[in-house]
Amino acid sequence: MRMYDIIKKKRDGGELTTEEIKYFIGGVTDGSIPDYQISALCMAIYFRGMTQRETCDLTFAVRDSGEKVDFSAIRGIRVDKHSTGGVGDKTSLVVAPIVASYGIKVAKMSGRGLGHTGGTVDKLEAISGFRTTLSDAEFIEQVNKIGLAIVGQSKQFAPADKKLYALRDVTATVDSMPLIAASIMGKKLAADDDCIVLDVKTGSGSFMKTVEKSTELARIMVDIGKRAGKKMVALITNMDMPLGYAIGNSLEVIEAVETLRGRGPADFTEVCITLSAHMLSLAGKGTYEECEKLARTAIENGSALNKLVETVKAQGGDSALIENTDNFARAKYSFAVKSPMSGYILDADTEAYGLASLALGAGRNRADDVIDYSAGIILRKKTGDFVREGEDIAVLYSNNESSLATAQKQLLSATVIGSEKPQAEPLVYGVIK
Amino acid sequence: MRMYDIIKKKRDGGELTTEEIKYFIGGVTDGSIPDYQISALCMAIYFRGMTQRETCDLTFAVRDSGEKVDFSAIRGIRVDKHSTGGVGDKTSLVVAPIVASYGIKVAKMSGRGLGHTGGTVDKLEAISGFRTTLSDAEFIEQVNKIGLAIVGQSKQFAPADKKLYALRDVTATVDSMPLIAASIMGKKLAADDDCIVLDVKTGSGSFMKTVEKSTELARIMVDIGKRAGKKMVALITNMDMPLGYAIGNSLEVIEAVETLRGRGPADFTEVCITLSAHMLSLAGKGTYEECEKLARTAIENGSALNKLVETVKAQGGDSALIENTDNFARAKYSFAVKSPMSGYILDADTEAYGLASLALGAGRNRADDVIDYSAGIILRKKTGDFVREGEDIAVLYSNNESSLATAQKQLLSATVIGSEKPQAEPLVYGVIK
Repeated sequence: MRMYDIIKKKRDGGELTTEEIKYFIGGVTDGSIPDYQISALCMAIYFRGMTQRETCDLTFAVRDSGEKVDFSAIRGIRVDKHSTGGVGDKTSLVVAPIVASYGIKVAKMSGRGLGHTGGTVDKLEAISGFRTTLSDAEFIEQVNKIGLAIVGQSKQFAPADKKLYALRDVTATVDSMPLIAASIMGKKLAADDDCIVLDVKTGSGSFMKTVEKSTELARIMVDIGKRAGKKMVALITNMDMPLGYAIGNSLEVIEAVETLRGRGPADFTEVCITLSAHMLSLAGKGTYEECEKLARTAIENGSALNKLVETVKAQGGDSALIENTDNFARAKYSFAVKSPMSGYILDADTEAYGLASLALGAGRNRADDVIDYSAGIILRKKTGDFVREGEDIAVLYSNNESSLATAQKQLLSATVIGSEKPQAEPLVYGVIK
Repeated sequence: MRMYDIIKKKRDGGELTTEEIKYFIGGVTDGSIPDYQISALCMAIYFRGMTQRETCDLTFAVRDSGEKVDFSAIRGIRVDKHSTGGVGDKTSLVVAPIVASYGIKVAKMSGRGLGHTGGTVDKLEAISGFRTTLSDAEFIEQVNKIGLAIVGQSKQFAPADKKLYALRDVTATVDSMPLIAASIMGKKLAADDDCIVLDVKTGSGSFMKTVEKSTELARIMVDIGKRAGKKMVALITNMDMPLGYAIGNSLEVIEAVETLRGRGPADFTEVCITLSAHMLSLAGKGTYEECEKLARTAIENGSALNKLVETVKAQGGDSALIENTDNFARAKYSFAVKSPMSGYILDADTEAYGLASLALGAGRNRADDVIDYSAGIILRKKTGDFVREGEDIAVLYSNNESSLATAQKQLLSATVIGSEKPQAEPLVYGVIK
């Protein structure tokens, strides 16, 4: 088999065989295929696409390129939720406790934030003492005992994806549906869950800018998961504005806790209820409608919040912060961003909001940047709200005073104000089963 | 300027600016752009194409990436002919003397053969003593004195093309019209001619397999040459069968000499007359029809043969070989390939004929292979001819006895024999001005 022939076949619109795809990913993993051939094939795939069979083979080859997790020692049904990444997306901190409070096992391995998107692991590390690294035995024991554990991804999952993504990122071949699907699902399937709920974000703050593209990606990924023997659901959710009002690590933990107390923002609460209900339903807890009631109940009766406190304690975190979020350290500096005019907020560039939060110290430009956990943004107004001239649009928090002006500028130029009240957009655009 | 943005722009169907193309070729030349970005852009160009303006800019950037030749010390009009490469293509040995015999200057820098195609320099080196390396001063002096000199390409012409071609060759991005045109013309324009006649080969023995593709390439290249201030003509000529009957270095020199004596094969003679006539006409010697007569006359009165003898003497070659071609050394072994059946030759895979000649020792698999000048093939029958069972199709020549069986096998499997006489194909499909 020759890489040249594989590139030529795809270039000419051919369908690659399973063996050819395995050969390709094998060569990416062991370094035997040079970068210039990999990038040429990625560009050919960008133009020619892949059949669903090819995309599945690619996903499985990526999955099989590295370590895999064995959850067979976990008793009960294992369900996970995976988000394609957004701004202010603290859903995991809410849905995992809700689902686990019903005895469903959530063995969660989460990522860290990069660029404008945050990561669940960073948010948890805003809770002092919280250990996001557990041994395999500790992890499984905790899941068996309390139903929930959340750690960082320490395994060498899908190294072929790491290599491929780095090349795609510098050769303008990221935006390819089969390559995106194989990248996300190749990593996801290396974990050992029974049910997966995908939260495919759509809009200005996400990877996929249109509902059509997000839906297409969701369909491909749901099909891949099913072919791998998983129970699958995907939601297409709105990322045209940040979820809730908080962006930044401890600020988001506080908002998640408020939500678990039943005092969360309406949009964020609804997305959490919907995701939890699908997770519970996939895990066999009843119809979607029944599970939606279960999810609301878990908030109302405090069982979900208790599960979060239990988890924080189990992983060494300071649960006093959860019990009273006033105990979180505040940033040294805060600054209110005032509206330059009166009118409705017509549009907010969510990615730019994420970048403003990054500028304040809440995120990472590079993988080794250090995070300021107290930094971030609390929005006062969101798309559709009316704001008077001089009224607060948002409050910025940082320990680096000089970053406030930069973030203010980013935020203002990302916010469009006009006279007509815009039509409300749905929170959930669709469900793919 | 970032290479990423250039790749993305082309990927999305945009037109690259002159500055972007210069930046790209500059980075290819100095090595600052990594191979994986070069190959990704080549694949995007494969799919999106280039406008004629972009192709010209690419060509000029490739031309400007290395050394250029200054022919200003040559007195008179300089004309060159460039072939895209074929099998048994010894036209340069005939057309250059014809044109030079009328006082037109032919300062020819030729290539060596690789793979199934031969090179003019190798053919000349079959003439013992012939020096294909001259100093710039010697070269120009000879052209001024006798009107003709033929040397190998010793200059660092278009190094960007060398790098690009090597990458395209292993990433399935060779077959891109703008990239092919920029490669050929970028090198060609580094030389300093006033008029260029392009011989674009079409068919099984050439780079371009169809007349349509060859015509498109010819149009693009003629336009590029004109934009560079050259007088241009391109011929689309048949390479569905070898030109003439001889393949291999000394065998082709002998056939070229026979042609200059007026005893050459009809097809080969016609192509040489046509090419010479266009060269003479471009150089201002009259209409095409007038120049065709001039070309025939130069053969009939022996002036073209005299010019070849003069050139061979000037470059140190043994002119006795030209005056009596029986003096060429013969290969130790010869072998007649017999037809397995009676019928018409319907089709001959010219590339396979070239590879059979290569197997006999007449060519190179790698750039540093040593050539057996006496090796090669004399065809007895060509497409359209009737052959009886057991009659000779061709005679093979080699100094390596074991290669005869291999070449025989290649030749027989490349020759299709059937009962219906095939329609004759034209020698020249078209002229692009």
